[in-house]
Amino acid sequence: MADEYIHFVTTGGTIDKDYLTHKGTRNFTIDDPAVERILETIAPEPNFDYAVESIMKKDSLDADDDDRERIREACREAPGENVVVTHGSDTMIETARQLDCDKTVVLTGAARPQRMTDSDAAFNVGMAVGAVQSLDTGVYVAMSGSVYEHDEVEKREDGQFVSR
Amino acid sequence: MADEYIHFVTTGGTIDKDYLTHKGTRNFTIDDPAVERILETIAPEPNFDYAVESIMKKDSLDADDDDRERIREACREAPGENVVVTHGSDTMIETARQLDCDKTVVLTGAARPQRMTDSDAAFNVGMAVGAVQSLDTGVYVAMSGSVYEHDEVEKREDGQFVSR
Amino acid sequence: MADEYIHFVTTGGTIDKDYLTHKGTRNFTIDDPAVERILETIAPEPNFDYAVESIMKKDSLDADDDDRERIREACREAPGENVVVTHGSDTMIETARQLDCDKTVVLTGAARPQRMTDSDAAFNVGMAVGAVQSLDTGVYVAMSGSVYEHDEVEKREDGQFVSR
Amino acid sequence: MADEYIHFVTTGGTIDKDYLTHKGTRNFTIDDPAVERILETIAPEPNFDYAVESIMKKDSLDADDDDRERIREACREAPGENVVVTHGSDTMIETARQLDCDKTVVLTGAARPQRMTDSDAAFNVGMAVGAVQSLDTGVYVAMSGSVYEHDEVEKREDGQFVSR
Repeated sequence: MADEYIHFVTTGGTIDKDYLTHKGTRNFTIDDPAVERILETIAPEPNFDYAVESIMKKDSLDADDDDRERIREACREAPGENVVVTHGSDTMIETARQLDCDKTVVLTGAARPQRMTDSDAAFNVGMAVGAVQSLDTGVYVAMSGSVYEHDEVEKREDGQFVSR
Repeated sequence: MADEYIHFVTTGGTIDKDYLTHKGTRNFTIDDPAVERILETIAPEPNFDYAVESIMKKDSLDADDDDRERIREACREAPGENVVVTHGSDTMIETARQLDCDKTVVLTGAARPQRMTDSDAAFNVGMAVGAVQSLDTGVYVAMSGSVYEHDEVEKREDGQFVSR
Repeated sequence: MADEYIHFVTTGGTIDKDYLTHKGTRNFTIDDPAVERILETIAPEPNFDYAVESIMKKDSLDADDDDRERIREACREAPGENVVVTHGSDTMIETARQLDCDKTVVLTGAARPQRMTDSDAAFNVGMAVGAVQSLDTGVYVAMSGSVYEHDEVEKREDGQFVSR
Repeated sequence: MADEYIHFVTTGGTIDKDYLTHKGTRNFTIDDPAVERILETIAPEPNFDYAVESIMKKDSLDADDDDRERIREACREAPGENVVVTHGSDTMIETARQLDCDKTVVLTGAARPQRMTDSDAAFNVGMAVGAVQSLDTGVYVAMSGSVYEHDEVEKREDGQFVSR
């Protein structure tokens, strides 16, 4: 169950947002993959091999069919059987339902950027890593503290992921 | 798979250490359960019910047979089928092997106190939560980025948990 | 020099920004005064008395003459002789030049919200507190690691405060 | 008043403590100077030149006369007129009283290691930097939120620095 390779695909979303300090920028910007910084906290070091593939840096509200096709391809072409996708929460479920590949794929993200104190990002990525090693082939969503099959989850108005 | 009750049992260990500021204290002290602070980062809020039961505040090197009996009892008496135990890493595997109960029990902890920047605590607890919802009845250890069955893991000299 | 009362006036700006997690919010919001959270880190506790007065929650690019008049009044009416004002950096110098009161007033803020890891907020507020206790009557700006008289500072395109 | 050179001398103490993760280490260790990490948060970058000179890594309870002589020499030989010394809090005042040099020297430290969340380290170093630029020649102590002349401060049993 342990010591397996995990392929991380990053697409942007809140988890990767940072606050830039230049004049006139009053906003958060999607920056480098948070998952790299989170995996570096594993001490003394991770006992699985992994690679982080950043395929886009988008707010998930702006993701279109071409973007979803790129995510689908990245999952299919990923080495090994275990894939974790970090994704914006607004359309995470939609992307999960359009993925089809014969691997164990877990999508996760964050309600609060990893760069902020009290972020849920490290917990969520941990949850996805724990699930991707334990689950059978299929596409899952790990958010709000639970792991769901992709067709058994919905996002409520207040942002919480719950069972449908 | 989701929305289930999880019972958290805390026993102390590095994950719960804090640095007290009184004169002459040159050391870390085991304080309140870190898992409570970690679960509070789940936003907007966790979609599982839970309780945190603190049964001792010990360095795991100091845990004796009586302590292990208390942990065993806490697991047996825990409501529901899903139990996460936070524990010091030095004797976590020993405790895991002495637990026997007909539930899904995942032990985890941290190499670096949750109160410190760059701690692995939130990732590890996330991993345990993701695993406890996904695994069959049994006792598991979630450390160093992987989830192990209790009889298939060992801790190396440098602190890393690996497959035996 | 020590143990004196300090009056903190907060007006918003980057230092007080937080990231809200509701659906569709892709942006920061100015939240409760960061200076309160920073002062709580002083251990075991601050040896000066203080109060925090939040008079507005604005991006400083949106501050108008009425807002500056409110800040001027808050400084005049502040108890004691030491006032620290937290303010957005974009128009901090403009506000400083329009303040006139017979107290020691130090304006500060942050390039990165206090809610983020690696924020400059705690350092900057510390700098302002160290300066307000040490300086004569006048209006000063404490940013980018230095304390300036209000008419001897300018902000460069890249956001750095430097001597004029 | 601004844009001047500041020389930082580090000696160890709580501010520089870290928690190492090797087996059997149940304790802190004094690590690399925290002041370097704090100064890196100044954004976009500090407007003063500086150097950080680490002359020892000691708990201040263990500092002896030879150590104090080394600190005295480091202050005398420091380039420029502004020196900030980071030091353990237990004997900070004793060291301050034995320093004599014709510069502005501010000693500071922390009640909580800089590596921990909610540390007072960044605030304290900011306070020292704000003070060293604003004060006349002399030796000062910046702790607990106030800046003191070295012969007008004492440390209470509970760790708070107050006026004598």
